[in-house]
Amino acid sequence: MKNKKLTILDSTLRDGAQGEGISFSVRDKIAVCRTLDELGVGYIEAGNPASNPKDAEFFREVKGLKFLNSKLTAFGSTRRRGVTAETDPGVKALLAAETPAVTVFGKSWDFHATDILRVTLEENLDMIFDTVRYLTDCGKEVIFDAEHFFDGYKNNPDYAIKAIRTAEEAGAAAVCLCDTNGGCFPDEIEKIVRAAVNALSIPVGIHTHDDAGMAVANSVTAVLCGATQVQGTLIGFGERCGNANLSTIAADLQLKRGYKCFPDENMKNLTLYCRRIAEIANVRLNRGMPYVGESAFAHKAGMHIDGVSKASFSFEHVSPDSVGNTRRFLMSEVAGRSTILEKVRKVDPSVTKDSPVTAEIVAKIKEMEFFGYQFEGADASFELLIRKSLGAYKPFFTLEKFKTIGEQISGEDFSPATAVVKVSVDGTSEISAAEGNGPVNALDVALRKALERFYPSLKEFALTDYKVRILDSKETSSAKTRVLIESGDGKDIWTTVGVSRDIIEASLTALKDAIEYKLIKDGVKA
Amino acid sequence: MKNKKLTILDSTLRDGAQGEGISFSVRDKIAVCRTLDELGVGYIEAGNPASNPKDAEFFREVKGLKFLNSKLTAFGSTRRRGVTAETDPGVKALLAAETPAVTVFGKSWDFHATDILRVTLEENLDMIFDTVRYLTDCGKEVIFDAEHFFDGYKNNPDYAIKAIRTAEEAGAAAVCLCDTNGGCFPDEIEKIVRAAVNALSIPVGIHTHDDAGMAVANSVTAVLCGATQVQGTLIGFGERCGNANLSTIAADLQLKRGYKCFPDENMKNLTLYCRRIAEIANVRLNRGMPYVGESAFAHKAGMHIDGVSKASFSFEHVSPDSVGNTRRFLMSEVAGRSTILEKVRKVDPSVTKDSPVTAEIVAKIKEMEFFGYQFEGADASFELLIRKSLGAYKPFFTLEKFKTIGEQISGEDFSPATAVVKVSVDGTSEISAAEGNGPVNALDVALRKALERFYPSLKEFALTDYKVRILDSKETSSAKTRVLIESGDGKDIWTTVGVSRDIIEASLTALKDAIEYKLIKDGVKA
Repeated sequence: MKNKKLTILDSTLRDGAQGEGISFSVRDKIAVCRTLDELGVGYIEAGNPASNPKDAEFFREVKGLKFLNSKLTAFGSTRRRGVTAETDPGVKALLAAETPAVTVFGKSWDFHATDILRVTLEENLDMIFDTVRYLTDCGKEVIFDAEHFFDGYKNNPDYAIKAIRTAEEAGAAAVCLCDTNGGCFPDEIEKIVRAAVNALSIPVGIHTHDDAGMAVANSVTAVLCGATQVQGTLIGFGERCGNANLSTIAADLQLKRGYKCFPDENMKNLTLYCRRIAEIANVRLNRGMPYVGESAFAHKAGMHIDGVSKASFSFEHVSPDSVGNTRRFLMSEVAGRSTILEKVRKVDPSVTKDSPVTAEIVAKIKEMEFFGYQFEGADASFELLIRKSLGAYKPFFTLEKFKTIGEQISGEDFSPATAVVKVSVDGTSEISAAEGNGPVNALDVALRKALERFYPSLKEFALTDYKVRILDSKETSSAKTRVLIESGDGKDIWTTVGVSRDIIEASLTALKDAIEYKLIKDGVKA
Repeated sequence: MKNKKLTILDSTLRDGAQGEGISFSVRDKIAVCRTLDELGVGYIEAGNPASNPKDAEFFREVKGLKFLNSKLTAFGSTRRRGVTAETDPGVKALLAAETPAVTVFGKSWDFHATDILRVTLEENLDMIFDTVRYLTDCGKEVIFDAEHFFDGYKNNPDYAIKAIRTAEEAGAAAVCLCDTNGGCFPDEIEKIVRAAVNALSIPVGIHTHDDAGMAVANSVTAVLCGATQVQGTLIGFGERCGNANLSTIAADLQLKRGYKCFPDENMKNLTLYCRRIAEIANVRLNRGMPYVGESAFAHKAGMHIDGVSKASFSFEHVSPDSVGNTRRFLMSEVAGRSTILEKVRKVDPSVTKDSPVTAEIVAKIKEMEFFGYQFEGADASFELLIRKSLGAYKPFFTLEKFKTIGEQISGEDFSPATAVVKVSVDGTSEISAAEGNGPVNALDVALRKALERFYPSLKEFALTDYKVRILDSKETSSAKTRVLIESGDGKDIWTTVGVSRDIIEASLTALKDAIEYKLIKDGVKA
C-alpha cells in the first residue's frame, strides 16, 4: 500500500525569492507565512538567515507568531571545511533562527564536491554528517536537501547514495532529492527516485525546477515512485524558469490520484490562496497557470463553448469549483454567439441567439476590437457596451470641458499637475479643480469631486490599478494607447478600458466607464 | 531502433489563436507562417476555414506564398451526420483552402459521439471513414486528429482504437492522439500511446494541453513510447492553460535525447524565433519559459552565480548558446557582489570586489530599490547609475523648465497636448514646443527637438514601448508610479526606468536616461 499522505514544503520565501522580479519585505514575508499556514502547507522554508540580513530580521520578528498547520524551517548549507559544525557561522545562523525544523543542503554530486567546494569526497561526507548530527543534537528536525542529486547519481550513483545515507545515519528526519538544474526527464526521475527510496528508511522528498518544462511531471512521477515530501513554491516562483508549482502538483495528486496535500475545504479555495500570494509579491498570476490562472477555465472556441454547455467534462478535466476558480466564456471572432449571449442575458434575459440586437452587439465588438479594444480583461466596459446596445443605458453626466496643466520651473521642485473639469447633470453644471500626481490623476480627482455632489456613493470608490499599453510599438508617435483601469469599492473590483491615440482621452474613456459602472452596480438612476 | 526524426506540427494560428488575448490579423498570420517555415516546422496548421471568415481570407492570400520547409494544413471536422462528405460545407471549406495537407478531427470517445454529436457509435465511424476517404481521394494528405483519445481510451479502449483504425483504413497519412482536456498523467500517456502505436502501421502523433501542467512531459513521454509527430504551439499559446510548448519539447528532445526537430543552426536561434512569434502576437514572452524566456538563464542567488562562474553546467542544464539565449546575472539583495561587479567592470575593468566604489554602488542600488526602482529590466538606467558612481558621467544637458497643457473644449474634438521645453547645453539655451498624443508624448517630442540642435544623432532614435505600473495599488492617490521606456535606434534596444509619485516626473527621468544612454552608446562627448 502506498502512503497517500504527502508532506508539502513551500519555499516561496527562500527559493521563490530568487526568481526575477520577486522581492519580499519582512511584512510581506509574514503575510506569505499566514497564507501558507492557513492553506495547510506542512513546512514553510522561510529564508536563509546566513546569507541575507532581511531574512535574519524576519526570523527575529516571526518568533511571536503562532502557526496552526505549518512548521517553519530555516535554510542553510553544511558546515564549511576546516571548522566544526558548532563554530561554523552558517550553522550558527541556522540555530539563531530558532525554527523547529532546519533544511540543510549539501553536495551529492562528486564533481561539485571536488570542483566547486574543492574538498575531497570523504571530507564532503564528513561535512554532511557533522552538520546534520550537530543540528539533530541541538533538537532540530533536519531535512537534508541533496543538491544536484540526479546529476550526481547519473555521474556516480554509489557516491550520491552514500551522501544521502550519511545524512540518514547522522539523524536526518528526511532526505530530499533535488534536480537543482531542472534538466531531468520523468524516466530518469523514476529510475533514480526508486533507487533512493530503496536505499533509505526515512521519508524521501522531491525538489524540482522547471528548466526542461517538466517540474510538475517530475514531482508527480517521484511521488508515484515513493517520494512522500514535495518541495516547491505555491505558484512556481523561483530562479531561472521557476521551482515546481505546488498548486498544480497538489491539485493533480489530490483531485486525481487521491493523495492528501491540503484539507479538502482549502483545496476548494486554492485559487484564492494563489492569488493572495501573487498579490503580496505584487505580480500578476500567470494567466494560463493550471487550475488557478484566470484563463484556466476560459473557453474561446465556439465548439468548445457548446461542448462545455452540454457537459462540462467535455472540455474541462476537473470542475473549476474543485479549486475555487470560475468558468469564463471569452469574446472574440472565434467565439460563437453563445458566449456573447451569455453576457447579454445577464442584462436582459429576454434576448435570444436570433434577436437582431445579438448580431448588432457582435458587429460592434468586432469593430471595436479592430480599433484596438480588448474586452477579455474589461468586463465592466463590456457590460456598458451591452447596455448601450440594448438601450438600457442613459448617461449619468456630460463632460463639458477640461484642462490640464503640468509644469516645472527651473530650480524648483516638481509641482503637481492641475486639472479643471466642468460636468453637467440634468442641466446643472459643476466646475471643479484638483491637483494630482500627473494629469490623469488630477483629472480623476477633479472629475469625481465634481460628480460627488450629484452622486455621493462615488466617495467609496477608488482606482486600484492603472495600466498603459502602446498598441503598435513600431510607430510610437502615431500609435494607439490602450488604458486599463481597475477600480474597487471594498466589495467589488471591476476593470474598464479606453483606446485612443491620446493617452488622456483613453484614460478618460476608461475612467468614465469606471464611474458609470459603479453607479449602475449600486442601482443609482441616471 | 527508434526513429529519431520527429515531425513537428505547429498550431499557433489555429489552436493557439484560441488562447485568451491572442488575435492575429491576416498580415500577422502570414508573418507567423514565414517565421515557422524559416525555423523548419514540418506542418503549419494555419486555421479553420469553415468556422472563421478571417481564416478563409488568409487561405486565399497565402496561396501565392512559397514555403521552404513547411506544409500548410487546414483544420476542420469530420462531415456532419446525414450528409455525404462531398456535400458537407465544412469539408468543402477544407478543400477550398487548397492546402497540400488537411487535419481532420473526429470523435474517438464513445460518450462524445453519443452525447455531444448525438449519433450512434457506428455512424461516428462512418463519418470518420467517409471524410478521410473523400479527402484522400481528392489528393489531400490527411492527418486524423483523434479528439479526446485518452479520455475515450480510458472509457472504452476498444472503441477508441476502432476509431483510429477506421481513419487508417480510410487512407489517413497519420493519426494524432489528442489529450484535448489536458488532464492526463505521463503514466497514462505511456500505456495508451503504446497501445495505439501497436494498433496502427501509420505514424502516430501526440497533441497535449497543459491543464495539469504536464503537456511537455506528456509529449516527451509519448515520443519515447513511439510517437513520431508532435503537435503544439511554438510558445505554448492555446485555450485555457495552453497547448504543449513546442520550443520546450523540441529543445528537450533535440538537445538531450538526439531527436531531430529543427535544423541545428536554427535550434541555435530558437530564442529569436520564439520572441518573433511573441512580437507578432503582441504579447510578452513568459519570462520563465524554459530555454527561451528572458529569465531562463538568469541567476540571482549569490551562490549560484559563483557556481556558474566556476563551471556553467553547475546551475545550467544546457548552455544558453545552444538555444540562442543569454546568461544574465541579476541585481538584488540576494545577489552577491560578483553580479554587480560584472556590470561595473564593463564600464571600468579596473574595479575589484573590494574597491570602495563597489560597496557604494551596492548601497545605492539598495536605496533605490527601496524607493521603488527595479533595475532587472532596465539595463541602460543601471549602466548610467554605475557611470554616475564611478565619476564617469557628465550630464549632456540641463532641463531648465517645461510646461504641458491638455484641454478639451465642449463639443470639439480632442485636441492634442502641448508641451514647451527649455534646455541648456554648455550655457547655450534652446526652447521648443511640440504637440503630442498626451503630455508625455508631447514632452518627449519637444525635448528631442530642443536637443537635436546639439546632438544630431538623436534623430535616429525613437521610443518603442512605454509601460506604466502603479507600485502600491492599495493607495492609488499617493502611490508611486514606475515608468519603463524601451527605446531603439534600429541597431539596439535599451530600457530605462523612472520612479516618482508623479507620472510626468517618472517619465521624464526614464526619457532623460534613454537619451543619455543613446549618446554614450554612440561615443558622443558630453
